[in-house]
Amino acid sequence: MNIVDIAIVGSGPAGISAALNAKIRNKSYYLFGTAALSDKVRRSECISNYPGIADVGGMELHGMFTVQLSKADIEITEKRITGIYNMGNYFALLADQDEFYAKTVILTTGVETVRPIAGERELLGRGVSYCATCDGNLYKGKTIAVICDNVEMEEEVSYLAELAGKIYYRPLFKNSSFAAKDTEKLSGPVTKILGEERVSGICLKDGTEISVDGVFFLKESVSPAVLLRGLSVEDGHVAVNRKMETNIKGCYAAGDCTGVPYQIAKAVGEGNIAVHSAVKYLAEQMIKSSEK
Amino acid sequence: MNIVDIAIVGSGPAGISAALNAKIRNKSYYLFGTAALSDKVRRSECISNYPGIADVGGMELHGMFTVQLSKADIEITEKRITGIYNMGNYFALLADQDEFYAKTVILTTGVETVRPIAGERELLGRGVSYCATCDGNLYKGKTIAVICDNVEMEEEVSYLAELAGKIYYRPLFKNSSFAAKDTEKLSGPVTKILGEERVSGICLKDGTEISVDGVFFLKESVSPAVLLRGLSVEDGHVAVNRKMETNIKGCYAAGDCTGVPYQIAKAVGEGNIAVHSAVKYLAEQMIKSSEK
Repeated sequence: MNIVDIAIVGSGPAGISAALNAKIRNKSYYLFGTAALSDKVRRSECISNYPGIADVGGMELHGMFTVQLSKADIEITEKRITGIYNMGNYFALLADQDEFYAKTVILTTGVETVRPIAGERELLGRGVSYCATCDGNLYKGKTIAVICDNVEMEEEVSYLAELAGKIYYRPLFKNSSFAAKDTEKLSGPVTKILGEERVSGICLKDGTEISVDGVFFLKESVSPAVLLRGLSVEDGHVAVNRKMETNIKGCYAAGDCTGVPYQIAKAVGEGNIAVHSAVKYLAEQMIKSSEK
Repeated sequence: MNIVDIAIVGSGPAGISAALNAKIRNKSYYLFGTAALSDKVRRSECISNYPGIADVGGMELHGMFTVQLSKADIEITEKRITGIYNMGNYFALLADQDEFYAKTVILTTGVETVRPIAGERELLGRGVSYCATCDGNLYKGKTIAVICDNVEMEEEVSYLAELAGKIYYRPLFKNSSFAAKDTEKLSGPVTKILGEERVSGICLKDGTEISVDGVFFLKESVSPAVLLRGLSVEDGHVAVNRKMETNIKGCYAAGDCTGVPYQIAKAVGEGNIAVHSAVKYLAEQMIKSSEK
């Protein structure tokens, strides 16, 4: 089992800053994300308050980040983390069917654009899933609801449509042209997941209840609190102190997921601090284990 | 009396970040510092962990900051702030013989390289001075000690030598060639300022006591706690919360002066946050005063 020192979850400015520092500090690490790095950065028209780079366009800054990562020999592990498990003195990170292990975790997942709906967190793992590849097989021939927040992930909707007997599909973006056999598009938003022991159905905004065996949320970013059980949240953001420590030992957070201001400068600052805290923690753990 | 919204004290990365944000947020401000911006940045050989700019030399980054400030039309007020006074709902900032006024203050003074010595803080304003121009006249024909931490400020030593009857001079840097009439260089460090009600003398490391009427500290940066009375300090750094608020209402701090890690990324992040907090505070004050 390969356990790295630091797993960075998210490839926006906070994650990039964390990776640069992990590299410099000679720690082993994963930087989980995509080659697209950060949608939010790429879509910025002009950034005028990032010190050192005057009036830079989002795509241009994205290019500078890409060059810098490549120069520093920092690879992105292109996996979407769907679950993090606290194993005591290390963390297990789940991405589709792969597992990764790290002594510390830095959450740089960005701000959650879609709030979880009633029942989503409660029934996670009991009919609610964030991962088509991992859990799709469990629903062969069954009836499922699929809620998807970006067009890039409709490929996974398609995969689920092949497996399931019947799909109720709710895209959270405009102009979805997705169509497949036995797929019915929902006309309104899903407001609640029904079920006690496990998922039994969904409830729509107009009150309609539909029986389903499972619900898939295909989201670009999963809320940190859903990713990692027991993580303290304040006003919808990961609760951290000035060292970027969360309430879970060895777990740090940085960037938009820790709250306003949603700014690149703040994100890179917090990513930097988080690594310095993680490095200190790793050194302390090393001393502890050598004393045993 | 012209009261600006935000006075930024220090022109390093935290101060630059703060100024860019004050400008963008349409606030009136002063950026106190020097055209040299930050010695620490300029002297860095290579910075490899500042996101967006791969492997940049200190002088090169200094150049990028300079260009950015000029593009953004941000002027530096080239004054060394030697005292800040909390006037209740605004602050008065003293620089030599000039006074400036601001509704909020952001301290971005960098890390203090020289710790205050015994008696320095206690006797400030009672024989201890940080400002040759302001207080030199009080010591015409008298005996003073002068402690200076950088060669650029020896001009002020020279000014004091003209006025005073006798000077004991202690440069804190190597190879000082300063010489003047009635000036005696001290061979060892000053360890203590003597005096109860006001300065009566200095004590050297070897125990020698010398009677003086006043002591001038000519330092590149004055400790924030000395600048502003009542400011909370923890382990030698300005105590702040995640919003960069100090214990004094309307006063914020950012960058190295708030503690480790001493990193450009951290400094720019904190400068950004501090302005956002100040902007919020200014809006609240506006509502309060309109309710009166």
